[in-house]
Amino acid sequence: MSNIVYIAVSLDGYIATTDGGIDWLHDAPNPTESDYGWSEFIERIDALIMGRNTYEKVLTFGEWPYEKQVFVATSVLEDVPSHLEGKVQFIKGQPSDLIAEATRQGYQNLYIDGGITIQGFLAADLVDELILTHIPVLLGDGYPLFGKLADSLKFRHAKTEIYNDILVQSFYERQR
Amino acid sequence: MSNIVYIAVSLDGYIATTDGGIDWLHDAPNPTESDYGWSEFIERIDALIMGRNTYEKVLTFGEWPYEKQVFVATSVLEDVPSHLEGKVQFIKGQPSDLIAEATRQGYQNLYIDGGITIQGFLAADLVDELILTHIPVLLGDGYPLFGKLADSLKFRHAKTEIYNDILVQSFYERQR
Repeated sequence: MSNIVYIAVSLDGYIATTDGGIDWLHDAPNPTESDYGWSEFIERIDALIMGRNTYEKVLTFGEWPYEKQVFVATSVLEDVPSHLEGKVQFIKGQPSDLIAEATRQGYQNLYIDGGITIQGFLAADLVDELILTHIPVLLGDGYPLFGKLADSLKFRHAKTEIYNDILVQSFYERQR
Repeated sequence: MSNIVYIAVSLDGYIATTDGGIDWLHDAPNPTESDYGWSEFIERIDALIMGRNTYEKVLTFGEWPYEKQVFVATSVLEDVPSHLEGKVQFIKGQPSDLIAEATRQGYQNLYIDGGITIQGFLAADLVDELILTHIPVLLGDGYPLFGKLADSLKFRHAKTEIYNDILVQSFYERQR
């Protein structure tokens, strides 16, 4: 089982602008109609663990985009909206608790999403794979992908894919 | 003429550890004895502009490593050490002043080095090319490459080189 981060990030390490905006992600022309490895990635995972902020952002998209089970890490939200019953569960606890609950329910490969959630998993050294898609922009400010860590974490470069000669997507595996 | 940044950076955007250490840069095995594009890059540039911190770091290496003219941006240092006369000049001012002085002396393509210096040039939108070599480690803390910017800056991906299947070096050009 693996805990995997798949995320787009600006060259200066932001995942959203200061107002939470992610429109800049879609600025890149996509003449090949690439899905940037998304469907291949989603096939590999069994469930998602995301933070409340990310969940609430996804709700603004309108249609719920995930077919896989989604665990939302929240100690605030209580009742899953009726149209998302069976698709979303609210859980709480430390990253290890979240993994334990997902594992108990039979989910093995987990997609870890959302800045704060990712930072918590990295701080606990619970990220096995990091798939970073670098967008060629310096945002200058915003929500950072990475936070401070008590110790450095080494990774192994597995592969890099270039999409449309614009986006650079590198796959890293934790080197323990 | 171009102002070019060529720098190695951790996946979380640091160029040195909290104590200024850069040993982690040399952790990656290098069975091909690659110079990571260094000599090809150095051939393209006419002079370097670096900050005082970087200059003082380079002095600790022992032998002076640059054949090209080096401008050190400093308002503190005054007299160039005798063994570096003709190789190093101390200059001061805003990024545009530094460029003007280098240009006045006939230097066209400038290698901009050092965290604070790079941040100043980016804040003034005076970086034309950004060559980032991503080292597969999360340092967790240290000297950041990028600082805050008032406005976002778009770049164009030019190419990506992978060295030893470990280091990912992407070339970006400012898209104005």
